[in-house]
Amino acid sequence: MNKNKKLPLGSTIGILGGGQLGRMLSIAASQLGFKTHIFDPNPKAPAKQVTNLSSTYSYENKSALEEFANNVDVITFEFENIPLETIHICDKLKNVFPNAKSLSTCQDRVIEKSFLNTLKLPTAPFVEAKSDDEILKSLNSLAPPLILKRTRLGYDGKGQEIVYSEQEIVNIASKFNKIPVILEKLIDFKLEISIIICRDIVGNISAFDPAENLHQNGILVESRVPASIPFSLASDAVLISSKIVNALEYVGVMGVEFFVTRNNKLLVNELAPRVHNSGHWTQSGCLINQFEQHIRAITGWPIGNGQRHSNVLMRNVLGPAVNMLPNDCAGSTHIYGKDDPREGRKMGHTNVIS
Amino acid sequence: MNKNKKLPLGSTIGILGGGQLGRMLSIAASQLGFKTHIFDPNPKAPAKQVTNLSSTYSYENKSALEEFANNVDVITFEFENIPLETIHICDKLKNVFPNAKSLSTCQDRVIEKSFLNTLKLPTAPFVEAKSDDEILKSLNSLAPPLILKRTRLGYDGKGQEIVYSEQEIVNIASKFNKIPVILEKLIDFKLEISIIICRDIVGNISAFDPAENLHQNGILVESRVPASIPFSLASDAVLISSKIVNALEYVGVMGVEFFVTRNNKLLVNELAPRVHNSGHWTQSGCLINQFEQHIRAITGWPIGNGQRHSNVLMRNVLGPAVNMLPNDCAGSTHIYGKDDPREGRKMGHTNVIS
Repeated sequence: MNKNKKLPLGSTIGILGGGQLGRMLSIAASQLGFKTHIFDPNPKAPAKQVTNLSSTYSYENKSALEEFANNVDVITFEFENIPLETIHICDKLKNVFPNAKSLSTCQDRVIEKSFLNTLKLPTAPFVEAKSDDEILKSLNSLAPPLILKRTRLGYDGKGQEIVYSEQEIVNIASKFNKIPVILEKLIDFKLEISIIICRDIVGNISAFDPAENLHQNGILVESRVPASIPFSLASDAVLISSKIVNALEYVGVMGVEFFVTRNNKLLVNELAPRVHNSGHWTQSGCLINQFEQHIRAITGWPIGNGQRHSNVLMRNVLGPAVNMLPNDCAGSTHIYGKDDPREGRKMGHTNVIS
Repeated sequence: MNKNKKLPLGSTIGILGGGQLGRMLSIAASQLGFKTHIFDPNPKAPAKQVTNLSSTYSYENKSALEEFANNVDVITFEFENIPLETIHICDKLKNVFPNAKSLSTCQDRVIEKSFLNTLKLPTAPFVEAKSDDEILKSLNSLAPPLILKRTRLGYDGKGQEIVYSEQEIVNIASKFNKIPVILEKLIDFKLEISIIICRDIVGNISAFDPAENLHQNGILVESRVPASIPFSLASDAVLISSKIVNALEYVGVMGVEFFVTRNNKLLVNELAPRVHNSGHWTQSGCLINQFEQHIRAITGWPIGNGQRHSNVLMRNVLGPAVNMLPNDCAGSTHIYGKDDPREGRKMGHTNVIS
């Protein structure tokens, strides 16, 4: 396949995953005149409401994936926990962006952090542990406070524990028996920021302004742009993010999360090989938002200028709070079309500009 | 039916007409978490690509319309040439916004202008003529230059003729035999502007800034905001538009076109009871655009502030020019998903901000 192909008008974009990110990607693709095909095992996946083409099969269903790949012109995905084998089935038939290498790097926290350190990019000190025994041994090289995370399949703070003493680690270790974990030095950061960066098929890069992010219980609650950081840190964050997407020969939008330490150093916290919650502000703050930018990149179209025209406060709407939105929605309001507003679930977001 | 009902989250909006306006309305509805159902006799109507619910029947098919109305929670339309009877079938079962009275007023140029004059709003002088004989008689009350327009079913300058002399009218009259026309004094205007105004279910009104519009061969080519008019004219245009939507008990977005005469007077040219091409700039210039505003109004949600955050130049992309867009799309790009880019057809638009 030609990796540098510019897709013609009206081509079909295949999207693996039909949650809110798939839904907003589909809407952005529609705006550019593309058709979209959503592949998701859930028949009620919200993105299936915004296109007339969808498939409802398991991500392990090889023949269904092959049929899907044959019926679309390029493939992308909305989340990093998609099986790598799913991507390998698809990329034999059509270009998949971002590539499998980027996905596999970001699927495993140990591989991801090792990759970053290979690039000489700063992260929190960490140790890998593949069993409860190894967790206990890690105390020889890394002192609490620590944060234990499953190396794979975590999201929104799930599968994480913070431990402040050796005793706490001893108590908790058995909970992770046989589950590979990463132990990271808990960073006493000043604030969290993220960069939404996009690299296109020919290697052009465009980044949006850093967002300052507030998490509660591991879930993003709000993003604010501009972030309260000096310009030099903002440009360092962009340079670090550029190095990452270049090293991966990445195509599309990536979210790069950083800690800003008390002494104004940047540490890369996490990579998300996809459009990212902390980039939703771009829908109201930029001429071309992260979703359109991603679609432009993976279709070989020119990517846009990430310049910000307005300051934005993006707030997530979690759980039953979504039911209040019709009464008070002065901001630009996005609701994801999910039918079960259970506690803590991301149901929508609002953007207010100034 | 309760006319003031606030629709719950995830309700379904029925849209009559599946062209680009229906498509962008559907996308805006999706953003707010609503489902949409597109009714259009054309199986390839572009809006059908952006939802999983659609019906393909004639606008005269009563039972199909009744089934459609029964399956949705509120109904709107994307164009004023929809048969009035279609609306009457639907509004027996569900609220239709804008109402039938607004539609019937705007469907006929004579009724529309008479309505405006009843409100004491200024229009070009006009005479109605129902036959070629009456066209000739009109010369007794109105001197050329004149513009002849079919009273019904015209759009984008189709069904119009400009005549500069009595002889030209004599020559042309037979062309309109038995077709009712309106003869309007041709206005030597300085510029054309439009107001996109929205009135909600409880009567709140919100208007966007006036756009300055450039037409070529009767087709809108570009809209520019801010318009080069004094503030007093802009606020007069908003007040006139408010009077119109209040008089019609209108719900939703309306486009009101004006001439600005050489001596800085406003004349109302035309009403469009729907979202309007000259309001596409709001997608890039405002936090809440005309499509979201319309959906908020017809669902009983609070309508948004129409404040402009950026200056915008909107350009329509007509006919085969759409094929060039993938090479040069620095602006925010909208492509409508039509498969036949014939000369002069509206295929997309771009917004550039400053």
